[in-house]
Amino acid sequence: MTGIRRLAQHLDISIGTVSRALNGRPDVNEETRKRVLEAAAELGYVPNQSGRSLRQGTTNIIGFMMQTGAEITGQGDTFFMSVFDGVQTVFARHRLDLVALLCSSQEDPDDYLRRVVARGFADGLILSATQRHDPRLEFLAKRKIPFATLGRSLTDVGQPWLDLDFEGMAQTAIDRLVERGHQRIAVTRPHDDVNLGYIFVDQAASALEAHGLFLDPDLIFRSTPNEAGGYRIARELLSKKDRPTAILLVNESIAIGFYRGLSEAGLKPGRDIAVIGRHSPQTHFLSPSLTGFELSRRDLGIALAEALLATMPAFSHFYPNAELRKIWHEELIEGESDAFLLPHG
Amino acid sequence: MTGIRRLAQHLDISIGTVSRALNGRPDVNEETRKRVLEAAAELGYVPNQSGRSLRQGTTNIIGFMMQTGAEITGQGDTFFMSVFDGVQTVFARHRLDLVALLCSSQEDPDDYLRRVVARGFADGLILSATQRHDPRLEFLAKRKIPFATLGRSLTDVGQPWLDLDFEGMAQTAIDRLVERGHQRIAVTRPHDDVNLGYIFVDQAASALEAHGLFLDPDLIFRSTPNEAGGYRIARELLSKKDRPTAILLVNESIAIGFYRGLSEAGLKPGRDIAVIGRHSPQTHFLSPSLTGFELSRRDLGIALAEALLATMPAFSHFYPNAELRKIWHEELIEGESDAFLLPHG
Repeated sequence: MTGIRRLAQHLDISIGTVSRALNGRPDVNEETRKRVLEAAAELGYVPNQSGRSLRQGTTNIIGFMMQTGAEITGQGDTFFMSVFDGVQTVFARHRLDLVALLCSSQEDPDDYLRRVVARGFADGLILSATQRHDPRLEFLAKRKIPFATLGRSLTDVGQPWLDLDFEGMAQTAIDRLVERGHQRIAVTRPHDDVNLGYIFVDQAASALEAHGLFLDPDLIFRSTPNEAGGYRIARELLSKKDRPTAILLVNESIAIGFYRGLSEAGLKPGRDIAVIGRHSPQTHFLSPSLTGFELSRRDLGIALAEALLATMPAFSHFYPNAELRKIWHEELIEGESDAFLLPHG
Repeated sequence: MTGIRRLAQHLDISIGTVSRALNGRPDVNEETRKRVLEAAAELGYVPNQSGRSLRQGTTNIIGFMMQTGAEITGQGDTFFMSVFDGVQTVFARHRLDLVALLCSSQEDPDDYLRRVVARGFADGLILSATQRHDPRLEFLAKRKIPFATLGRSLTDVGQPWLDLDFEGMAQTAIDRLVERGHQRIAVTRPHDDVNLGYIFVDQAASALEAHGLFLDPDLIFRSTPNEAGGYRIARELLSKKDRPTAILLVNESIAIGFYRGLSEAGLKPGRDIAVIGRHSPQTHFLSPSLTGFELSRRDLGIALAEALLATMPAFSHFYPNAELRKIWHEELIEGESDAFLLPHG
């Protein structure tokens, strides 16, 4: 294996510069870095990560832990890929690579994370799908591993987090529907113990109370956060004797299945039931158009990456003003799916 | 840091067993593995990957390289997440972890792969989005890094591959449409140099020729493989003077946007234009229902993982009969989108 000295001779530049280039340090210009990596590959110099990690404790890799599995496929994807795009924009400035750590739904997330950490191949981590109570946070904090979460949790170890404004979405949607005369309003929540479900339902309930209404427990529909889940909610809702006149959908992917379920029964959003959801790349193509909340997933990814780096000693000086905790506002895009007005009760 | 000896004492099992458990060897039972990993975490034993990798040359990680970026988001996701599910089913048998290596569209895939290899943190790789000519294959072969590809390429270094049956899809769809009286048939292809575009268009052309027809170059629509791309194809198609009566959509995600583009112009698939596409979790909720090709992405993932492991010395004995190269058949699911018949010309 070619050593670093030989590589430096070949390139006719200093060992220090070669080393900095190989280690992805930001103070080497792009041109030089490329030359060094190319020569390294050509000459068979493999700057073994193992050696590097032992010497320096850095791998230049950040892992993003996400859940996979048959029952959640559909959700994970459209949302996260755009977030990754933003995260990578930030990481690229520092020659950090993003890898997605795919925790199968067959596996316990806590065990999985333990193994990831034991293998020690990432300098930092981003966790998603934060649970109401989430032992992963304490696990990482105890080991002083830099991490940020996409999502809040009742478990709080002081880590940076970004989360979507589920309170704001519930409040805005309820106010809007009540304004239009609705009183029997249904909501959805994910099937599992992910924290956002609690926030969303709690806020919907208190927003209704403020209008002198209440959230009927019979109108809280649980489902997997994918198309099939939305379809099942529609079927379930249609089977109720005392149907709601409106519904809030908390997950992006369920709108498509929900529309389909209504359509099979001859019902139309905005005519037979008011629907407010959240937009994904797909939902923009629904007809009638969906009234739903939208955000720039890319910008969210950028902010999330900056919040993480702001807490890592090697990068914190680049981000003195990063917001370490932020509730991310989503904007309501008016469509036709909640078009009709009911006579005020 | 607690040593392996101390860990073995604490657990009262042999050092060999502890070592095998820590190294994810398949000959340790699940119960024992769990106990060892839990104790390791408790006692602060971190079986540093660096040390392990130097000693053994294994990381127990397989990387799946995929492209990310604003212009492809929508595609990557729904397809790959289900494939991952299958891949992980196989890897779990051997305590291998799957990580997704996310190559930003801002970056040259060849450079990216070079860096992945230089960092040496995976025992094997799976590449997707194989290009017509793909230098990545030669790069990995030269370095004797085990890998498999999802997709073929004119570059062939003897690696295992699985690919979808684009020939079969083009042939079946063209035969079906011609049978129903169509003569002006449009096709789509991806915007970039990915190999499947060539296979699909070539086969559509020769299938048409066999019927005494020809593929009008003006009816080959290029687009990004996502919803927005499908929408643009619809707009472009509608602007043509001599419109096709039928179209084959090569990418899964474009159907949703294509439907929307038609709908805005008051046109309906299956009534005004015959559409044959490929199914994704989302397209099953389209109305009118899509006539399209479907496969089990999970089974594809299983076969892909087995093909890779069959070529890795540590695992090949588990898969003596794995198919190392396979064209994966997709089944046509009849919907309403190509319902109408044209009078035979």
